[in-house]
Amino acid sequence: MKQYRIAILGATGAVGQQMLRVLEERQFPVETLLPLASSRSAGAVITFRDRTIPVETAEAAAFDGIDLVLGAADSETAVAMAPAIRAAGAVFVDNSSAFRLEADVPLVVAEVNPQDVKQHKGIISNPNCTTIITLTAVYALDAISPIRSMVISSYQAVSGAGAGGPVELMRQTEAICHGREYPPQVFAYPIAYNLIPQIGGPQEHGYTSEEMKLHYEGRKILHRPDFKASSTCVRVPVLRSHSVSARVTFERPVSVEQARQAIAVAPGCRLVDDLAQMRYPMPRDTSCQDLVYVGRIRRDMADPCSLHLWCCGDQLRKGAATNAVQIAELL
Amino acid sequence: MKQYRIAILGATGAVGQQMLRVLEERQFPVETLLPLASSRSAGAVITFRDRTIPVETAEAAAFDGIDLVLGAADSETAVAMAPAIRAAGAVFVDNSSAFRLEADVPLVVAEVNPQDVKQHKGIISNPNCTTIITLTAVYALDAISPIRSMVISSYQAVSGAGAGGPVELMRQTEAICHGREYPPQVFAYPIAYNLIPQIGGPQEHGYTSEEMKLHYEGRKILHRPDFKASSTCVRVPVLRSHSVSARVTFERPVSVEQARQAIAVAPGCRLVDDLAQMRYPMPRDTSCQDLVYVGRIRRDMADPCSLHLWCCGDQLRKGAATNAVQIAELL
Repeated sequence: MKQYRIAILGATGAVGQQMLRVLEERQFPVETLLPLASSRSAGAVITFRDRTIPVETAEAAAFDGIDLVLGAADSETAVAMAPAIRAAGAVFVDNSSAFRLEADVPLVVAEVNPQDVKQHKGIISNPNCTTIITLTAVYALDAISPIRSMVISSYQAVSGAGAGGPVELMRQTEAICHGREYPPQVFAYPIAYNLIPQIGGPQEHGYTSEEMKLHYEGRKILHRPDFKASSTCVRVPVLRSHSVSARVTFERPVSVEQARQAIAVAPGCRLVDDLAQMRYPMPRDTSCQDLVYVGRIRRDMADPCSLHLWCCGDQLRKGAATNAVQIAELL
Repeated sequence: MKQYRIAILGATGAVGQQMLRVLEERQFPVETLLPLASSRSAGAVITFRDRTIPVETAEAAAFDGIDLVLGAADSETAVAMAPAIRAAGAVFVDNSSAFRLEADVPLVVAEVNPQDVKQHKGIISNPNCTTIITLTAVYALDAISPIRSMVISSYQAVSGAGAGGPVELMRQTEAICHGREYPPQVFAYPIAYNLIPQIGGPQEHGYTSEEMKLHYEGRKILHRPDFKASSTCVRVPVLRSHSVSARVTFERPVSVEQARQAIAVAPGCRLVDDLAQMRYPMPRDTSCQDLVYVGRIRRDMADPCSLHLWCCGDQLRKGAATNAVQIAELL
């Protein structure tokens, strides 16, 4: 079996760390592993398969001889490094938003459009975490009747803001419990015992950049240019795992029973849907694993072509690192 | 000015305590104040206008000579006490869900349907907290074009579960910060750093009792029997103030600018809607006051007749105690 020489761009960050764990768990055929990060991480080390590996500075020369680059850095770094990665002949599976909507870059959710991987010209983009979790949850329903539009309200964990998010939330809550202040640094406002209804900057029609991602990325992933998503993205004081309250509108009515049966056997999903027994997805149950839990499936009170559901998934795992490694496996 | 002899049923609970504060703040003409609670609260005292008043046991004989009873107890107590309150000739403004949907009981949001108070036959019901907050936020839009349906996802604070909710959340978060367990008592699952997508028991079509309230109460308050609401109600680790992500569907298109102008001057509302300046409603800003803050107003991406908005309000104040005292003022 071929072994691959892999670089991780942004290996010290929250998503980069998860990529290392997922490569280990899935026994990815790694010949050499090269952790890269900005010069701020100079001197850092990572562990991989019980070995300690020094982190090297991400610069153009680093990619010589590399087969595959898993990108866990920001968009600016991804754009800066892409030419060198391409010149080295490596494939770049990038988690940033930099290339997601470019015409010659496949945007892939492993359970939804794996065939798109074949079209790549050196770069494959990993979608936004909320997009991955939502589409993994609902895609099995698209085969029953095409999904036309969605309305989602998200409940996004602080780990989505990077490794500093959980630290800030825990220290801030503890400070408040002791009557002290803990001024926000990672977030614009205190997040402990609060909600912040803004993720990303203002984009168009009063939506934020985060809120427009499901709309545009969904169109590309589903190959349905008239798909429409209206999102409200909210940061909540949860450490890990994003949750989504979704209203899904189909071309024709889909029954609750049809939806349950489809999701029960859908790849990447676990059906957790028994209100009478108080069983439904919760972020505390879905963290540090790869499935998207789906429950609270019910019909809309007004529109016979719409269903509601509630789903939770670990946005660092399935919402980022796991999906990126799955893309690498598809290659 | 006539002075009233007032009893508070459930005076030691979270809502009862707020009723005392709201009566003080609004300088309600109180001649005598009688705090009532179950025998479990025997020996307790409350303070009102700098006086300490012993809590008496809620029983039929307690209502003799009372003009007005503000109900802050559970449905069972409300049903048990209603005949005695009626026999005493007092008006019962009840915050429980016991009588809300009965034909001869007005269900009133002070800013929406104050005229309904006149129809009372001894009992007036205060709506559910999420219903009050949501309808106060959107009612000004109904005059531009009638509201036909709504899709809401709620983010409900732990104080909605009574005075024990905030205590459990704070102790549980602190325990987790120190690596300890704090088993849930008030809630079915740990709420610290978690979300619980169930409030109330299973009711119909897979919705919970809490989720059906906006649907049925909204029909009665708006006098629109074909109004439809599809709700997902979620408990979040916030101490106080409920938040709601709402999609409102009108008979005809309503522009974002029309909606902003209407909400800016709507009674009971404060427009906080400037994404570029990072101004929007947040629960930490709306607690311990009476206005419902409304922001993030924008059009739906799929339906020209729908708008989205985000609102926050203190569910113990406007969502319960303040609205009850407003009803008493209307009398």
